[in-house]
Parts: sequence; C-alpha cells; structure tokens
Amino acid sequence: MTSDTIQPLVNQLGKLDTQLFETDFLKTWTRSGADLEAVLLAAETIEKLYAENVSTRVFDTGLAVANFRDNSTRTRYSFASAANLLGLTVQELDESKSQIAHGETVRETANMISFLTQVIGIRDDIFLGQGHKYMVDVGQAVTEGFREGVLPQQPSIINLQCDLDHPTQSMADLLHLKQHFGSLEALRGKKIAMTWAYSPSYGKPLSVPQAIITLMTRFGARVSLAHPAGYNLVPETLDCAANFAAESGGAFEHVESMEEAFCDADVVYPKSWAPMHVMEQRTQLLQTGDSQGLKTLEQECLANNKKFVHWECDKQKMAATKNGSALYMHCLPADITGVSCEEGEVSADVFEHYRLQTYREAGHKPFIIAAMILLTKRNNAADLLGRLASANKPRHMTA
Amino acid sequence: MTSDTIQPLVNQLGKLDTQLFETDFLKTWTRSGADLEAVLLAAETIEKLYAENVSTRVFDTGLAVANFRDNSTRTRYSFASAANLLGLTVQELDESKSQIAHGETVRETANMISFLTQVIGIRDDIFLGQGHKYMVDVGQAVTEGFREGVLPQQPSIINLQCDLDHPTQSMADLLHLKQHFGSLEALRGKKIAMTWAYSPSYGKPLSVPQAIITLMTRFGARVSLAHPAGYNLVPETLDCAANFAAESGGAFEHVESMEEAFCDADVVYPKSWAPMHVMEQRTQLLQTGDSQGLKTLEQECLANNKKFVHWECDKQKMAATKNGSALYMHCLPADITGVSCEEGEVSADVFEHYRLQTYREAGHKPFIIAAMILLTKRNNAADLLGRLASANKPRHMTA
Amino acid sequence: MTSDTIQPLVNQLGKLDTQLFETDFLKTWTRSGADLEAVLLAAETIEKLYAENVSTRVFDTGLAVANFRDNSTRTRYSFASAANLLGLTVQELDESKSQIAHGETVRETANMISFLTQVIGIRDDIFLGQGHKYMVDVGQAVTEGFREGVLPQQPSIINLQCDLDHPTQSMADLLHLKQHFGSLEALRGKKIAMTWAYSPSYGKPLSVPQAIITLMTRFGARVSLAHPAGYNLVPETLDCAANFAAESGGAFEHVESMEEAFCDADVVYPKSWAPMHVMEQRTQLLQTGDSQGLKTLEQECLANNKKFVHWECDKQKMAATKNGSALYMHCLPADITGVSCEEGEVSADVFEHYRLQTYREAGHKPFIIAAMILLTKRNNAADLLGRLASANKPRHMTA
Repeated sequence: MTSDTIQPLVNQLGKLDTQLFETDFLKTWTRSGADLEAVLLAAETIEKLYAENVSTRVFDTGLAVANFRDNSTRTRYSFASAANLLGLTVQELDESKSQIAHGETVRETANMISFLTQVIGIRDDIFLGQGHKYMVDVGQAVTEGFREGVLPQQPSIINLQCDLDHPTQSMADLLHLKQHFGSLEALRGKKIAMTWAYSPSYGKPLSVPQAIITLMTRFGARVSLAHPAGYNLVPETLDCAANFAAESGGAFEHVESMEEAFCDADVVYPKSWAPMHVMEQRTQLLQTGDSQGLKTLEQECLANNKKFVHWECDKQKMAATKNGSALYMHCLPADITGVSCEEGEVSADVFEHYRLQTYREAGHKPFIIAAMILLTKRNNAADLLGRLASANKPRHMTA
Repeated sequence: MTSDTIQPLVNQLGKLDTQLFETDFLKTWTRSGADLEAVLLAAETIEKLYAENVSTRVFDTGLAVANFRDNSTRTRYSFASAANLLGLTVQELDESKSQIAHGETVRETANMISFLTQVIGIRDDIFLGQGHKYMVDVGQAVTEGFREGVLPQQPSIINLQCDLDHPTQSMADLLHLKQHFGSLEALRGKKIAMTWAYSPSYGKPLSVPQAIITLMTRFGARVSLAHPAGYNLVPETLDCAANFAAESGGAFEHVESMEEAFCDADVVYPKSWAPMHVMEQRTQLLQTGDSQGLKTLEQECLANNKKFVHWECDKQKMAATKNGSALYMHCLPADITGVSCEEGEVSADVFEHYRLQTYREAGHKPFIIAAMILLTKRNNAADLLGRLASANKPRHMTA
Repeated sequence: MTSDTIQPLVNQLGKLDTQLFETDFLKTWTRSGADLEAVLLAAETIEKLYAENVSTRVFDTGLAVANFRDNSTRTRYSFASAANLLGLTVQELDESKSQIAHGETVRETANMISFLTQVIGIRDDIFLGQGHKYMVDVGQAVTEGFREGVLPQQPSIINLQCDLDHPTQSMADLLHLKQHFGSLEALRGKKIAMTWAYSPSYGKPLSVPQAIITLMTRFGARVSLAHPAGYNLVPETLDCAANFAAESGGAFEHVESMEEAFCDADVVYPKSWAPMHVMEQRTQLLQTGDSQGLKTLEQECLANNKKFVHWECDKQKMAATKNGSALYMHCLPADITGVSCEEGEVSADVFEHYRLQTYREAGHKPFIIAAMILLTKRNNAADLLGRLASANKPRHMTA
C-alpha cells in the first residue's frame, strides 16, 4: 500500500480544470494557472511514487525523441530520466548524422521521426527569435501528421529551453520554492531577486531570467529584476511579468544593482546572461557564418562584461537579504569564483553553503518533465496516477 | 478483444511456407514470393495491433544493434521504432568510438557486439561492390559464433540499404501499393515508371531503383525504367527484373525518357541516382583517400547531371499518366524545385499534392522492419502474433 | 521449471559473506576473496538463467550511465548488455555534448546525471595516476548526494578500465579459467604467463597485465610476469601480486623473456603495453596539450618497441608450454601478425587456433558486469536470483 501522502495530491490534481491534453508545453505564460499547478502536483505525485518504489510505467513501448541543438547535461539526463520513468525509450535526433543536411524541411523530418513517438523534447536556445518558432513549426507539423492519418498518435512537444522560455527549469524552481516555503500560497509576497551576475563568458541565453520573472509573478511573488545597463531581456517577457504581477497582487520592479535587488529578498537568483542586442547580432553572424565577426563580438562582449565584475553574489551582499539568509538559487552550472573561473557569478563560500540545495532544486526536473509528458498525453492524469498508486507494482525487485 | 481484421491476416500468414527463420534479410530477389508476402502480412498485423493499443512486446530484454555507415534519419528511426515495438533496445555501433580503428576484423567485431543481440541492422551504401559483401561477412561471422557456442543466439542481419538493394524501403513501398490498389493481386498489370530525376547532388546510391525494379516485377507489375544515357544500374538487378517479369506475367522495359516511362503509368517513382561507373570510381577514390580526385569527380558529375535538368517530375509530365493521376512515390527526402533546391527531382506543386501520401508510404517502414525481425527470429510468427492479439495486453495505459 | 544446475549456484552464493552492497567495484585487490567468488557465482547464475530464457529483469525502469573517456567496443557492448539484462537503460555521458566544458566540477556532474541512475560505468585509462582517482571522486560525490537527500538512491560505480585495474576483463578471464579447469580450486598451482608482446602501437594501458597478476595470484596460480627492460608496471600492483601469492600459496615471479615465462605454462597471456614511464610522460604531455612532444614520444616509443619485435607468441614458443598446449588468452583485439598488422603480438596460426576460445572468454563479460551491478545494488542477491529462477518468467516469447 502506498503512503497516505499520495492520494491527497491525486485528489487535488483531479479537481483542476486543465487544458494540457494534446497540447505542446512551450511557454508557461501562455498556460493557465491551473495547468501550472497541475504540473507541480503531478510531479510531486510521481516523485512520491518513485520514492515508494511504485512503477510509473505508463508505456510498455514507445519513443521519446530528444533534439538538443545546444549542449546540455542536466536537461538531457532529466529528459532521459523522465522518459524512462514512464516507459519510453529516448532516441536522440543527431542532425549531423541525419539526411537533414540534404535540405529536408522541418515539417517532413518532424513526421519521419514520429511514427511511433509519444513526445519530442527540443532545446534550441542559440538563435534569438528562432528557437520558439522552430518548436511551433515542429508542433504544427506533427499535428497535421496526426490529423491526416500519417501518425498513429500526436507527439507532444516539450520545450527543453528556447530563446524565450525554459519552462522545465522554472517549473522545477517553482516546485523547489513550493517545498521550501511549505506551499504555493506561501510564495505570495515573497521577494525574489532575479539578477544578472558576472561571468567570463558570453552568449548565455536569456531564457532563465525570462522564465523566472514571468512565472514567479503569477504566484504573487514580488520579483525584483536587476542587470547592468544594456543587458536587457526580450520586451514580451517584461510585459508578461508586469501584467502577471498586477493580476496576482505580487510585484515586478526593475532596479539597477544587485545590492538593491537583494535588499530584504527572500530568494536570490544571480545568473549571467548576454544582452539581448548581442544575442541578436550573434544570431545574424551565426546565420551568415561570419566567424571573424563572431570573434570580434565575443571580445567586445567579454570586455563589456568585465566592467561589471562586481556583480558577484558574495557574503556581503547575501547579508543584506531577509535575515541575511535568503535562499540562493541557480540553474547550474554556476560560474564560481576561484572554483570554475577566476571571477564569477558567486563566491565560493556562498555557493558551498547552498550547493546541496541547488542540487535538490535540479533534482525536481526529471519529475517536472515526466509530469509535462503525462499531462499532455493523457486526458485524465489524476485517475491514471491514482491507478498506478493502487496497483503498487514495484519499480524494482528488492532484496 | 481485438478487431476482426487481425485474425484473417494471421490466418493468411500461417498458411505461407516461408524460409525466413534464422536467416538474414539482405536482398528481396533471393527470397521466395511467400517470404515477401509473409513480411507484408506480418507488418500489417503489427500495424493493426499497434493501432488497437495491443502490446507486441515479444522480448522482455535484448539488444538490437544498428550500424549506420552512412547518414540516415527515417531508416534510423524506423529501425529504432521497430526494435522498441518488439521490446529490444537499440545500441548503435559508432565505429569512430570503438577500437575497430585498431585493426579489428569484421568477424571479431560482429561477435563482440552480439553476445545478447537479437538483430543487427546495417546501412552500408557508399561503396559499390562492398556494402552487400560486408553484410554477408557479418552474417557468416555470427552464424559461426552461434554454431560454435560463442553466442547464445544467432542475431539476424537486416539490410537497411546496401549498394545493391534497399529492401526495407521497397517492401514499405510494396505495402503502400498493396493498400493503394486494395490487394497485391491488383498490382498485376499496373504500369510503374521507375525513372531517374535531376538533382543538384551526386553519389546517391543505386539501391532504390534497383530495389523497385526487382521487387515490383515479381508481382506482375509492368515496370518501365528510364534514365539518361550512362546512368546505368548494376546488371545483376536488370537481369533479375527481366526474369521476374517473365515469370510473373508482368513486364520490364527500358525506355529513354521520363515522358515515355510516365505515359499511361499507374505509378511514378522519379528519383535521382549516380551512374554506376561513377559509383565505382568514387569507391576507388574513397578507398585510396584521394580527396582531390573526389572533388574533380564531383564537379564532372554535377556538370553531367546538369545536362538532364529537364528530368523533373512536373505537372505536365504527370498529366500524361493514367487519367492524369498516377500515384507519385518517393523514398524521401525528395529534392523539390524551389523548396529544397533551385531545380530538383520534382516540382513543388506535384510534390505538395502527394506530400502526405509519401509520408504515409514512409510510415510503413517501422512495421516492415518489425516484421522482418519477427520472421527471422521466430519459426511460427503467425502463432505468436495470434497469441499477442488474444493476450490483448495494452501497449500503454489509457486515461 | 529451471534446470537443476541453478539452485546449487544460488546456494553457494548465499553462503558467502560479502561486502559488495552499496559499494563501488573499482579494483579487485581491495575486495575480499568472498566478494570475488560472489561475482563469479552470480555471473554464472545469470548466464544460466539467460540460457534457459528466464528473465533477469530486476528493474522495471532506471538508468545506467556509461562514461567512456576512451574508445571501447566490447566493454561498451558488455555494459549495455548487462544493463539491459537487468532492465536498466543506458544513457551515455558524452562529455563533448555536455556543459562540462563550462567548468563544471566532477562532484556536480556526478549528481546531475544520477537522479534516477542505479549504476555508473566508467572507462578512464589514458591518464596514468588519474583514472582511478576520477572514479573515486565520482563515487564520493554520489555517496554524499545520497546521504544528503539529493539522490533517491546511491548509484554504484563500476570500473570499466582505469589506469590501474580492469576488473570486468580480469574477472571474465577468471571465469573463463574456472570453466576451463573445471573449478576455481583447480587453478591452484597452474602456471600463468603474463607477458608483454610486440605491437606496432604505443600507449596501450597497463591495466590488463596489472589486473591479471593481482587477481590470479589470489587463487593460488603461479604467475610469471615477463617484459623487456623498461616496460615496468605500477609498483603497487607488483607488491599486491607478491603478497597475494604468498598468502594463497601460489607464486609470483618476474622473468626476462617470453620464452622463460612460457616454459611449462598452463596459460599464456601475451599482450602489449606501454612502459610506465612513457605513460607518465604521455599523461603530462596530454595535459599540457603538447602535440609536438606527443609525436616525438610516439616515435621514440615505436622505435623502442621495434627492438622487441621477437616478443611474438608463435607456434615455436607455444610448443614449450605444458604439453605444448597451454590455453592462449587475450582481452582482444589482438595485434595479429599478417592479419591486423605486419608484425604483432601473436602469429596468425596460433591466434586462429584459439580464436573461438578468446571469443568465449569475452562472452563472459556482460554477465560479470551484470553480477557486479546486482551485488552492489542488492543486499541479498542470492535470494533475488533464486526468486527469479522460481518465477521463471520468459525472457522472450517463443514460437
């Protein structure tokens, strides 16, 4: 028999009016609050079933396609873990080994890899203005394929980071905060500092800060965004954050220093990103294959970054947070001063203090992704999870 | 309970006298007609079981090795899907990451990757005169390994495209035609135009046209082969096609223009390939690593191709087919004029008209491969499929 | 019902007092004799269950991470086969595709890939003095992760070849000898010649000879080590071999020629390796990225190797072994004179005579690795294997 903590989660999930079934999970800000809560509840349920050694194998066979157009470790493993947990087998789409080079269209490839595919996870975060578009195109292609009898099922698309959003990350972060504060409700009124931080690298996507400001404002948090002049985010996401804050009774402010953002914060999320205009230039240079231009841009950017080397999350800045003990968050890997670089986003002592917490934060991601797959593939996920709990089939034989 | 359409297929399959068990599936023209019909029937059965959410998991554990010596998207995914559908896990043999570079023999490698392997899928289509030979060598190696107690089972070899044949493609095409015309019998007397078409690329294998002319002639089709002077196919396959046509009461003719081949055709298959003598030269140059020679050959070939840019499947040529509405087929990806290249194999309007049908044509491939695996691994596949239908175990949990 | 040969193995296994549970399998010489015997017994049991078509699927879902920092064919497939046999899905860690390049620490990566991971197999054999250390670091990281609630389970680390030991190879070799001589006991007093052999390559790891001399001496064998002057092994392993021989009543001698070692030997293991001091220099040059230095070192080494081209296992040398019919062993691939190179480790006729036996020797490896996984993951593997035998669930459907 499974523990008493599972059924209440399933019941809560069952009461939500969600619209996730047969859709793609691309951006949190185009989903309802119920959809987002459902993802959290399903993730928590799967997490508990896992902990109690209950199999969540919904699929006996089936493929989960992963298309990483940029490097990844934790998201790659999280997606693989989530697929495996549900019984799906990951087949990575390696565009260098395929005939895509022969001029194949997105529409065709999307169908060709989907005949027995239940879900397609995509990371496409390098080209600003393109990543999200590509995911939409793939989604439309397989929707047409399913409607026209090409595909026996409609694979759902899961955004594993694009140029705009990084929903598997931000939803894992939200689950981390829900558990940290005890409930989603407790997030209301909490101050979250989403700030830029110095890194000796350039070209980091904007998707994490954009994901955080748009998501946390929905649940009543007071989000304070800080970055040096010029390190702007995509305007669409700033508008979303402002609107959500107004709706939820939270707040969204834009300040000019890490210190200001940290002041009395309950949570800090210091993280490097590239200025939007640099990402735009870089996208153009990458598309025209201008390697000299890319080198010049990199040099300029690194030099510009250098001006803001004091944007480091250190002990002194942490002291100004609520009771001097805000929760430090990061999507990892962090650029840690004296550890992974000479000068970075966070001092070694601060990072070490929160290191295991950032690992636990990351640990939610496989379950968040499994929840997204389940909810986009099944109309009544609550019932399904309840049946898995009742069946109580061991995930592995014990001895 | 599974639908009434499955048992008749299983019964038909059970009546065939096949010799597929414990053999390799390398070329269609060395197999009996019963063997080929069995593959179609098993594929259709598995397709229906899949559609009715019945698990076809024959293997609880086991490996399926994939060795792609050339790029592939759809065949790679088809093989992965077929393996997954039967419960096998794909382990790709990446020769660049292995110790094969250390001078290991084919015989040894074949055994080393096969201790728990049920099937080995191989694509080796670049070297004319070598691809098929390699597959035979691998097959002989694991046959010896099984006989001598090295391997607990004999993996079957599935040709995923070699220099001579592309049986998983042509059998999927045949299933497409069977369903298009309503029965295999209805293919008798139908005219199929297998023609060369212009492409701004060179070095495309001969295996698809060779596979089509040798396979369709067996089932009574009237196959008309057309290509520009010099774009010859391997003589063995021309002889096969002529002999099969004579036996089946079909026909095999060789004409000199796309127009002539298309005239009154029921089916057209316009597709680019390289001249046989070019593939021979290219094989030698690749083997001697003569990159300058390869560049020169490519330039010569592209220039020669250019003379035949009018070999494009367009509306006007399609109008001359039977009732102006022949079925257009392609193994994909097609070189589409104005879409994937400036001038290509097919005009954009013709391709778009048949686009979804070519996707459906491709959609049979996973099931064809699953059928080949099942029939080469199991002596009584009909009985096995019947038991799967009766067991009616859900492929995935519904909600 | 499973055959009568399985229960006695399970009973023997059950009587051993082992300390494998929740540990890593990194070196044989730090494990007890009972631990090693348990691995052999569990491997033999799994081998028999496999042969009798009994499923050994202990895990319904779960990941097995493979991290190959050097090329591999047979170990890669052996690990994949072992994981698959137990129900785990392999997820390879490709460090070139991950964010590890961003300066991530070993500790962090180890946790990020392990949220749903049961076992991590690592090959790290290029850097002398580093490979074993890396495995220890990964093991400590996931131990901390499990203890601190980051990971829901503690993945065990399996050494798939490091700079010091190659336990999955040597344990497979030991099982081969156990079956060859009829029992482990029968190995007592047998003479095993572990000798260097000529190869036209350089930089081969020391781990195989080190693994053989340290393991076989524990079971009472008389091990004779031979190599040209300068081709020294790591002192730690020589000390271990001497101590084990003293304890077990076996012997460990160091001689100066292949002929001397082969004299009256029951088993010969002629195999090339690089001198320890060369591996040390190479490690430094690799770390400083000195490609000119590496080329020079390679030339010097190949020239030095050439002086010992007569260290070839040929018919004449084999004639001097016990009854002229010692068992020839090799971890494969062997450098075979006239086959894979002009002059190599073994003559073509000797290798061909023993070829199938070396394949069978390699065939134990998947089962050895499965045994290591099972014993490090389960406290009472004997009971578990007994239950699998009783359950007698078919590994695949028969027809």
